[in-house]
Amino acid sequence: MRLLFYVLICLLTGAGAQAETLETSTGPVRAELVLSGLDAPWAIAFLPGGGYLVTERGGALLHVRNGTARRVSGVPRVAAVGQGGLLDVMVPRDFATSRAVFLSFSRSEPGGGAGTAVAVGRLDVGGGALRDVRTIFTAAPGSRGGRHFGSRIVEAADDTLFVTLGERGDRPSAQDRGNHNGSVLRINRDGTVPGDNPFVGAAGVQSEIWSYGHRNPQGAVVDGQGRLWVVEHGARGGDEVNRIRRGANYGWPVIAYGRHYSGEKIGEGSAKPGMEQPMFFWDPSIAPSDVMIYSGRLWPEWRGDFFVGSLKFDMISRLEGNPLREVERISGKATDRVRDVAEAPDGSIWVVSEGQGAIYRLTPAR
Amino acid sequence: MRLLFYVLICLLTGAGAQAETLETSTGPVRAELVLSGLDAPWAIAFLPGGGYLVTERGGALLHVRNGTARRVSGVPRVAAVGQGGLLDVMVPRDFATSRAVFLSFSRSEPGGGAGTAVAVGRLDVGGGALRDVRTIFTAAPGSRGGRHFGSRIVEAADDTLFVTLGERGDRPSAQDRGNHNGSVLRINRDGTVPGDNPFVGAAGVQSEIWSYGHRNPQGAVVDGQGRLWVVEHGARGGDEVNRIRRGANYGWPVIAYGRHYSGEKIGEGSAKPGMEQPMFFWDPSIAPSDVMIYSGRLWPEWRGDFFVGSLKFDMISRLEGNPLREVERISGKATDRVRDVAEAPDGSIWVVSEGQGAIYRLTPAR
Repeated sequence: MRLLFYVLICLLTGAGAQAETLETSTGPVRAELVLSGLDAPWAIAFLPGGGYLVTERGGALLHVRNGTARRVSGVPRVAAVGQGGLLDVMVPRDFATSRAVFLSFSRSEPGGGAGTAVAVGRLDVGGGALRDVRTIFTAAPGSRGGRHFGSRIVEAADDTLFVTLGERGDRPSAQDRGNHNGSVLRINRDGTVPGDNPFVGAAGVQSEIWSYGHRNPQGAVVDGQGRLWVVEHGARGGDEVNRIRRGANYGWPVIAYGRHYSGEKIGEGSAKPGMEQPMFFWDPSIAPSDVMIYSGRLWPEWRGDFFVGSLKFDMISRLEGNPLREVERISGKATDRVRDVAEAPDGSIWVVSEGQGAIYRLTPAR
Repeated sequence: MRLLFYVLICLLTGAGAQAETLETSTGPVRAELVLSGLDAPWAIAFLPGGGYLVTERGGALLHVRNGTARRVSGVPRVAAVGQGGLLDVMVPRDFATSRAVFLSFSRSEPGGGAGTAVAVGRLDVGGGALRDVRTIFTAAPGSRGGRHFGSRIVEAADDTLFVTLGERGDRPSAQDRGNHNGSVLRINRDGTVPGDNPFVGAAGVQSEIWSYGHRNPQGAVVDGQGRLWVVEHGARGGDEVNRIRRGANYGWPVIAYGRHYSGEKIGEGSAKPGMEQPMFFWDPSIAPSDVMIYSGRLWPEWRGDFFVGSLKFDMISRLEGNPLREVERISGKATDRVRDVAEAPDGSIWVVSEGQGAIYRLTPAR
């Protein structure tokens, strides 16, 4: 039944029947509905040669192409509890030859609870099944809590993978490198640890860790210079954009802007020697999901700008400059609880709206 | 006359006549006088195959070998005003084949004032003259002030040079990338700008700049992982150890720990998003000169530790760990206004004392 429903909407969309205009400082933007009927969509990834993949948190991976959406088989079993479930999907640069698709998800653990995991499979030629699926990373130890899974996967310039992990609601664990909570990981495509990771050989430290002291990073992007940026759900009044550096400590919960959601003061304030400052923070918090850095041809004036989805204020925050600052908020029906923002190969901006259970394609309305 | 005096002291020292014992947490250390009679010595650099070079701020470069010190000819004319003069000397890794010696110094400018400059020459086989001396970098614009020249030169893992520059007493200039003041530069060995410097192509920015927002960095070292660390004279209660990152802003005079020496509050406090935090700061300030990271065989327990010379408290500050912390202060006659601390090829620690006008060699006293 669900499958049929996706298809119908796609056909409608193909006719361009449903669109709205969003106002921006660069002129009006057309937001066209391309897929609806989704249940808690989390992430989108484009396939070279056309089509795209979408995750639903409940566990479905959809392959959409030529106005047809179908569910991909072979996805690992996920623990769809709280904020967990099937989360990110990442298509690497070499997909045309490798057919590799990476997924992050929360995975049930034998003793109860769930931990963030990463799997890789090979999308078959028909695009309907993942083959040879292997879980290449499982966070240890997991947690019984249902919060702060993190889970964004991005590909580094050197083909390693960065994976963001939240602190699972266990604040002090973000400073404890003996577990994976609250960190950005760097792993090889087979899940092994690159020999030049910062803590390789350090006693009692998980060697996948690249940076730590994070609260719940759910957005990540590698810029044109190969630098990793992460956006994370911070304290109340302290959601952050961070430039990620090898081996660095981002301070949670010792330092942060804002306050704990309880109103309680944060550890030692907003700064401490040896701990990183954010490049930008939002006060009030916007609940940022993913981040995209625009590089396309449709809006030359936006090249290099950061687009960050907001779950809380139903908008996309655009940031620019050095120092980075928020210059506008783009909103409409299309930005209802934005879970993902992505640039398509043609330079259009695609928005995954959890609130609408839909995907929109943004282009200049001119 | 001066020349003769150096020689005599060296001969005395060869006999080990003058030594003291310094107490450290790792046991007693013998500090042996190896050269005295120096006038405002600033830096020391060891030559592969034996011997070393020493600068005197007045403009002399000395070559010391086999108990004989002699003045090297061919050194550029320096403007020995205030804190300026002949400053650092750096011997690159390929000296055995290139015979290259790099010098930093303050150079008179046609319109008055002086600017930090870097020159390179070739030490002749006899070791008594620099040949083919060329000034490969001159800071623009200079300043009529006599303060904050910075001037430490270190060699990066990729054979480029890092050069530290103070803000010349002109605080706001440290944030203005249109001049070189208050920055760490990265240049090629011929003074040209590496194409991958962070601000290459940026309008109105000096392309030699690698990082900025520094006050007066006079110490620099590249660690075993190829990472650059700088120590700098900061505000009152805010001398800093900084880990230097490409393109980053270290905040002066917008942020700093401590206060201006006038007692006035600093710009916006001690932290700001987008500006770097120090890895460590001293309060009260110690007036740090150079920094060395120990790697030798004489004190295995000190490997990886930072040794920072203090001009103000006549001691060497030893720091260790992550986060970095000061664990002890080593002091005696040998540490009277420490201008430079260096590790010799044999693992002994050499100390350049401005107060004593002398150089000491430290070894375990056991």
